[in-house]
Amino acid sequence: MVALSKNKIKWVRSLRLKKNRDAEGLFVAEGSKIVQEILDEHPESIVCLITIEPDFQSEMPTFVTDAKTMKSISSFQTPGSLMAIVRKPAMSTENTGWTIALDGIQDPGNLGTIIRTADWFGVTSIICSKNTVDCFNPKVVQSTMGSIFRVRVSYEDLREAFEQDSRPVYGALMEGQDVHSILKPDEGILLMGNEGKGISPELASSISHPIHIPGKGKAESLNVAVATGILLSELV
Amino acid sequence: MVALSKNKIKWVRSLRLKKNRDAEGLFVAEGSKIVQEILDEHPESIVCLITIEPDFQSEMPTFVTDAKTMKSISSFQTPGSLMAIVRKPAMSTENTGWTIALDGIQDPGNLGTIIRTADWFGVTSIICSKNTVDCFNPKVVQSTMGSIFRVRVSYEDLREAFEQDSRPVYGALMEGQDVHSILKPDEGILLMGNEGKGISPELASSISHPIHIPGKGKAESLNVAVATGILLSELV
Repeated sequence: MVALSKNKIKWVRSLRLKKNRDAEGLFVAEGSKIVQEILDEHPESIVCLITIEPDFQSEMPTFVTDAKTMKSISSFQTPGSLMAIVRKPAMSTENTGWTIALDGIQDPGNLGTIIRTADWFGVTSIICSKNTVDCFNPKVVQSTMGSIFRVRVSYEDLREAFEQDSRPVYGALMEGQDVHSILKPDEGILLMGNEGKGISPELASSISHPIHIPGKGKAESLNVAVATGILLSELV
Repeated sequence: MVALSKNKIKWVRSLRLKKNRDAEGLFVAEGSKIVQEILDEHPESIVCLITIEPDFQSEMPTFVTDAKTMKSISSFQTPGSLMAIVRKPAMSTENTGWTIALDGIQDPGNLGTIIRTADWFGVTSIICSKNTVDCFNPKVVQSTMGSIFRVRVSYEDLREAFEQDSRPVYGALMEGQDVHSILKPDEGILLMGNEGKGISPELASSISHPIHIPGKGKAESLNVAVATGILLSELV
């Protein structure tokens, strides 16, 4: 194994910024679990590994560094011992069946969990408004648990996307129909809104089918990833 | 407003540890959103506020400090401008209707989201195995969005708890019955397992009703908070 050079440290740090990830077509996966999953399922995507364990064995190009440097290049408060620099997956751009549309999701854990949940239910396409967090943010990548390779996430003007799409748009609104009473449609777009503000007014008018998850407690709302899971479970 | 003294700094830091939170019956809420919710809904619970905004106005005892000190007492990488020291709520110990049982949940965000989801569906009692993350961890408190005041969370030996409870135990297992095909029971215990390992073998044998969320994608599993939401939505 080769020691991680100063230039490489600079390069890894540069990938914290979306514009550099976009320019290089690369992203960073952190933590043994997600890196192991990529090694098992998508080894061709791995550019190199970075580890703090001198005895670590791999056929991939691997750089070793110390815990302090790992902390300085990591996006996590408590970094793992293994990191991978990964090529972004190329995926089909076809939109069939169900698509999830996300309007301004800010929390990386929420976006990652939504990608993972989409994958569970066989939804392979997510379109995001341009102010949604980048899907190749390391915290998003970690929460997807590998689903980032199976779900295509794109960033678009959602209003335009809806206008060019003939499928019905389902959106969670307080005055919507109980989701349990809806017949499962073959296809559609499920629109989910920002964590604090919900669906923005200019997109709410695009909703053809307002739906609602009935609750009986006092919580003001559900977490957006949980709500997405409940709605997909009922609709798809 | 009074400046935050060194002794107070030490005291706030001491509340990072569960044993000190337990001994004092206090916890820390961080971030304007959750603190505002507590100010609105449970002002009697607030011991004091800590802010970095010299112009902040409140009738509560308030201490002002600088951003650097706030970072040093916060549990978050990016602290907010407002923090509250809060008395733990006292709640009824009655278990009726539905109870959620959590076996070794480790991620604070997952526990907080499960508490919030329970509150949405009117489930007011959660029992946790002793190796589950503390519900008064600041990151849990933040993700509950205030539901920590409405859902009682206790830490118990789950096997013993199940033996002393006559309600059926529902647990998600791969070979379980499709949750959509189950008639809604009036009461029960919903057992959810650890993020990586699932339900531990010694508890799996207590499951009277194995259930399953059907998926058709390639994801290995669902996030535990999302799975809890889907199951509650079907069962409760």
